[in-house]
Amino acid sequence: MSGARRDNRRSNGRDDSSRVAKAENDRKPGRENRGGDEKRGNSNNAARSGGGGGGNRGGAERGIAPAQQPYDNNGGHRSGGGGGRSGGGGTSFNGAAFTESQLMDEVPKKKFTGRCRLFVGNLPNEVKETELKELFSPHGDIAECYLSGKGFAFLRLDTRAHAESAKEAIDGRIIHGRQVRVRFAVHGAAIRVKELSPTVSNEMLYHAFSHFGDVERAVHIVDEKGRPTGEGIVEFERKPNCNEAMAAIRDKVFLLTASPKPLICEVLEPRDEDDGLAERMIPRTPGLSKERELGPRFPTPNSFEYVYGMKWKELYVVEQKRRAQLDEELRESRRRLESDMELAYQDYQAQMLREGYLMFFLLFFWFRALFFFF
Amino acid sequence: MSGARRDNRRSNGRDDSSRVAKAENDRKPGRENRGGDEKRGNSNNAARSGGGGGGNRGGAERGIAPAQQPYDNNGGHRSGGGGGRSGGGGTSFNGAAFTESQLMDEVPKKKFTGRCRLFVGNLPNEVKETELKELFSPHGDIAECYLSGKGFAFLRLDTRAHAESAKEAIDGRIIHGRQVRVRFAVHGAAIRVKELSPTVSNEMLYHAFSHFGDVERAVHIVDEKGRPTGEGIVEFERKPNCNEAMAAIRDKVFLLTASPKPLICEVLEPRDEDDGLAERMIPRTPGLSKERELGPRFPTPNSFEYVYGMKWKELYVVEQKRRAQLDEELRESRRRLESDMELAYQDYQAQMLREGYLMFFLLFFWFRALFFFF
Repeated sequence: MSGARRDNRRSNGRDDSSRVAKAENDRKPGRENRGGDEKRGNSNNAARSGGGGGGNRGGAERGIAPAQQPYDNNGGHRSGGGGGRSGGGGTSFNGAAFTESQLMDEVPKKKFTGRCRLFVGNLPNEVKETELKELFSPHGDIAECYLSGKGFAFLRLDTRAHAESAKEAIDGRIIHGRQVRVRFAVHGAAIRVKELSPTVSNEMLYHAFSHFGDVERAVHIVDEKGRPTGEGIVEFERKPNCNEAMAAIRDKVFLLTASPKPLICEVLEPRDEDDGLAERMIPRTPGLSKERELGPRFPTPNSFEYVYGMKWKELYVVEQKRRAQLDEELRESRRRLESDMELAYQDYQAQMLREGYLMFFLLFFWFRALFFFF
Repeated sequence: MSGARRDNRRSNGRDDSSRVAKAENDRKPGRENRGGDEKRGNSNNAARSGGGGGGNRGGAERGIAPAQQPYDNNGGHRSGGGGGRSGGGGTSFNGAAFTESQLMDEVPKKKFTGRCRLFVGNLPNEVKETELKELFSPHGDIAECYLSGKGFAFLRLDTRAHAESAKEAIDGRIIHGRQVRVRFAVHGAAIRVKELSPTVSNEMLYHAFSHFGDVERAVHIVDEKGRPTGEGIVEFERKPNCNEAMAAIRDKVFLLTASPKPLICEVLEPRDEDDGLAERMIPRTPGLSKERELGPRFPTPNSFEYVYGMKWKELYVVEQKRRAQLDEELRESRRRLESDMELAYQDYQAQMLREGYLMFFLLFFWFRALFFFF
């Protein structure tokens, strides 16, 4: 029901955007030859429309949102923001709001991304590239097939779903007498971003990070009810762009919305929730068989195991409480900083206003003096 | 290379296990009629082989692992462990070690699980079940097709990969003028388990939780290097089994290995890292446009935004430090409990030994007294 509401809102722009997405995909297979043209087109576009629209927007929205003025008066961040940065296109970060088309057009669904890359292990030495390709090609188009010659290979399929179905079908299959293993390769250029405002959509994240380089995928993670978690994932096509973004966000203040709460970024440490810890992966140590002497059980009350088990459970409860306590303390200091900032911002506005008046009176008297003489 | 080593170790048992898995899968489509026979068979099996093997195992391993005795002497937990429990099959949790076949045979890959269930939203009212099935059937077999008549439906496909490819293909498609949405349905009977010993494999988790009811999937989550994280996911076929497991683990001490560190369980709160917060999902509020007045930027040093942005960043650092501090403190109290437990365990062993000697001497003198009279 809520789905119906949401989708009706978007339905006008849909036909165009899906066509755009399709065009994007069609262009993709030749991405090695592209050399970043697309990206530059993107960011120029953003800068142009953002820069051009800056004046209009300011004028049109001033009526609803007077709070915006001081940032404009400040004059520094909007045009000069690029001054301190190293690379990434000098004028790309001008602080201009996201354009309507950035927000409303569907982000292109890229193919042959790092998420569609499979690791194939335990390959017999006699396997050739053609045989490997034949094995995977029924599941999707293959863009990359790197055969190491040391018993492993990397393959890149067109979509995640195709890679998933190839993995499901081929993992564990016996080829020339060896049971091959298929896993998703770790994405080499993915970052985790934190402290996202709940107003930041996937689309905003995508276009914001496109300034650093081609983005494959940008997601603001939601919980099971669709509420934003403040955490996101950004996957770049190339590692250097990823590093550049990480360094810039770490060293400087990177803002996506009006609120001056900067983003945090971290290297994404993926966890494997699909394959997990299979029995054959556990190294056989003497400690292992001792640890495994006993199996699943609920010890009877007052047994040694029960008494110490309950002590552990008490410890878990204490840990949980202390973590909750710390969280509450930290939330409190966040609230304090927010209210400090609010006050300082009002002061700042008032000061700007005073300076404005002063300037006005100075000009006024200067003009009066001027006309007085003539 | 490490893949090769791992897989060789398993290769002997493979052929049988894959045949078992296949048989399991073939049986699956008729799962509604099964009525838990399979499960009972499973747990009986475990109990039988575990119970029968108990004596042998104890005898065979005593030489390597004398530490086991006190638990045996205790006598309570192994046979009487089931005493306090409500339901779940009286003799199933006898603390017997996992059997070789439980550890080495591949766990059946179940089909038509809760993970293969799709939610289809924004459906036009005129869509009929047959049309819906026609739409999804090219991607896989369909087991469940519930059409609400209120614009949404649930479908259950055979495998996760098939559901994935159906989602990718059908999500966003326009049907009778409406753009349908396809999402994975939330698994209703999934739990997150914590404090798993690094020796607990997927297979152990699967068989341990099968005592509560049919398990669809059990995974000990690993990091990108394949190291166990101590956290796992267990998905049951039915909600009541899931609830029973949750209650038992919450109220009692549930142990999987020799170490008396009990498991923790929580309701699994899935996060959507695939679709995330799309622009069309964000409600249009007056605050939204104000928050979005400014776009991505690096404010110039000494601007208001920069100064407060840096204050936020300082706060982030403080938060991180305090969390790390707390973690260290909590680790320290864990270490303390562990060494306490170690000492108490040694005392306990010594006491058991003394009691054993005492009993022996008493019996000895009693017998001597007896023979003295005759």
